[in-house]
Amino acid sequence: MTPPFRRVTVLGIGLIGGSFALAMRRHFPEIRLTGWDRPEVLEKARVGGFVDETAERLDHACAEADLVYVALPISETLRRLPEIARAVAPATLVTDACSTKLLVCRMAERVFDAPRLFVGGHPIAGRERSGLEAADADLFAGSAYVLVGSQTPGDERVARLQELLVKLGARPVWLTAETHDRLVAYLSHLPQFVAVALADTIAEQVPETAVAELAGPGLRDTLRLAGSPAALWEDIARTSPFLTEAFDRLLARWEALAGQLGTGRLREAFERARRIYAILRRL
Amino acid sequence: MTPPFRRVTVLGIGLIGGSFALAMRRHFPEIRLTGWDRPEVLEKARVGGFVDETAERLDHACAEADLVYVALPISETLRRLPEIARAVAPATLVTDACSTKLLVCRMAERVFDAPRLFVGGHPIAGRERSGLEAADADLFAGSAYVLVGSQTPGDERVARLQELLVKLGARPVWLTAETHDRLVAYLSHLPQFVAVALADTIAEQVPETAVAELAGPGLRDTLRLAGSPAALWEDIARTSPFLTEAFDRLLARWEALAGQLGTGRLREAFERARRIYAILRRL
Repeated sequence: MTPPFRRVTVLGIGLIGGSFALAMRRHFPEIRLTGWDRPEVLEKARVGGFVDETAERLDHACAEADLVYVALPISETLRRLPEIARAVAPATLVTDACSTKLLVCRMAERVFDAPRLFVGGHPIAGRERSGLEAADADLFAGSAYVLVGSQTPGDERVARLQELLVKLGARPVWLTAETHDRLVAYLSHLPQFVAVALADTIAEQVPETAVAELAGPGLRDTLRLAGSPAALWEDIARTSPFLTEAFDRLLARWEALAGQLGTGRLREAFERARRIYAILRRL
Repeated sequence: MTPPFRRVTVLGIGLIGGSFALAMRRHFPEIRLTGWDRPEVLEKARVGGFVDETAERLDHACAEADLVYVALPISETLRRLPEIARAVAPATLVTDACSTKLLVCRMAERVFDAPRLFVGGHPIAGRERSGLEAADADLFAGSAYVLVGSQTPGDERVARLQELLVKLGARPVWLTAETHDRLVAYLSHLPQFVAVALADTIAEQVPETAVAELAGPGLRDTLRLAGSPAALWEDIARTSPFLTEAFDRLLARWEALAGQLGTGRLREAFERARRIYAILRRL
């Protein structure tokens, strides 16, 4: 099959950008890959064979690409999108990998003029570790990959992006930015903050020696997300429009559960919880 | 080495009692094991070779044992302890495996007269599945096993129980019932209820199709405990003296975190959470 793009630029070569580069290498070795990041990351990317060439300037990195894959933090993406829109050639498709979509897509609507095209993206994939060192060509395999609206539905470049993602093993799922942000507030952001709140409560109430001595695998699983870096989540918290609502809903459930503790009427909440876990177990 | 006990009776042959029986089989094949449970469970235990003999009556099961291992639900343990205390011979040591200790140990203090002896126990071990079918001779290996007070410190039977647990691979840890119950309220009970509250919030707010499509491994790990059976936790909730306090502490942390969402000042909570997770990761 002819590759869906000839030249691809990856902006930000961390866990997501690095994994994207490795997956492209494996599935589309004929595509020329250009990388852009801080100099020390670029050096690692070059040595590790993640990309064919590196660019020190963002505009140079973007100028000749027909696909630009933006794998930068959310705040950095918001800040850089105008510059990216100015730098790319008219036929270029730009996509991002941010965990919240509404603000990024609104910004893109403002700064991209046709025929330059932006499609929001969010790979529903993660690892416990972050950075280039944790990159994995299989990161997207078997996972959903949310794509968000396009100013020109049916554009052939969008079809090619979708084809590329399928080749990488991902399942493209089209959602509006609002729907995406609302769903991930519950399915991704809330679990993260719940893990942090629980771990922080334990930090406050239980000596570390007792944690080491008495904690079991159940706690370790529940707190796995508590190892995530704060900077990523500060970005998400600032740009997730439904997170406060999700916090309030959990608070209401927590208070309802607290009221039922002594009553022996926990069965219904546990049954609903089991149903959800049964779905996840099948994944 | 001479076995620490000659005849051991296991009351309740589910995940814990069944695992204890299998572990005893492996490490002390010369000890005669008697099982007591509902007839259909007893039949499975006999067929599966968990025990040498079964008893239909609790008092018969206890009469000749020098160690009685009570692996019944908490409410059933509380209800049966007087009967067990009456049935055992004077030289017998009785121990339980309940997840809360204060009420059980208080009851035992009331109903056991020397030289009959009760020592509370709580293996810090679990599996996603419950029942005889999930039993595993390695369940206790590498885990803490809390032991709670004894009316006669230094009693030789207690030393033998401890020796037995070490042979099974467990790490005996002596605590008071209060200390145990307070620590597990945070390290075990709170994570369970957090998982249920989160899963229940998702059940309320997110269509099941979206859960199946968009949930990642992070959510699955966070909700692993949500598959636990309600009956077990109704028992724990009714008998855990520090659970309400733990609920309140988490609520306070949750509200503090909610207030920090937009501020970019999440770093401290995340740092404390990471420290706790780092401890768990080393386990």
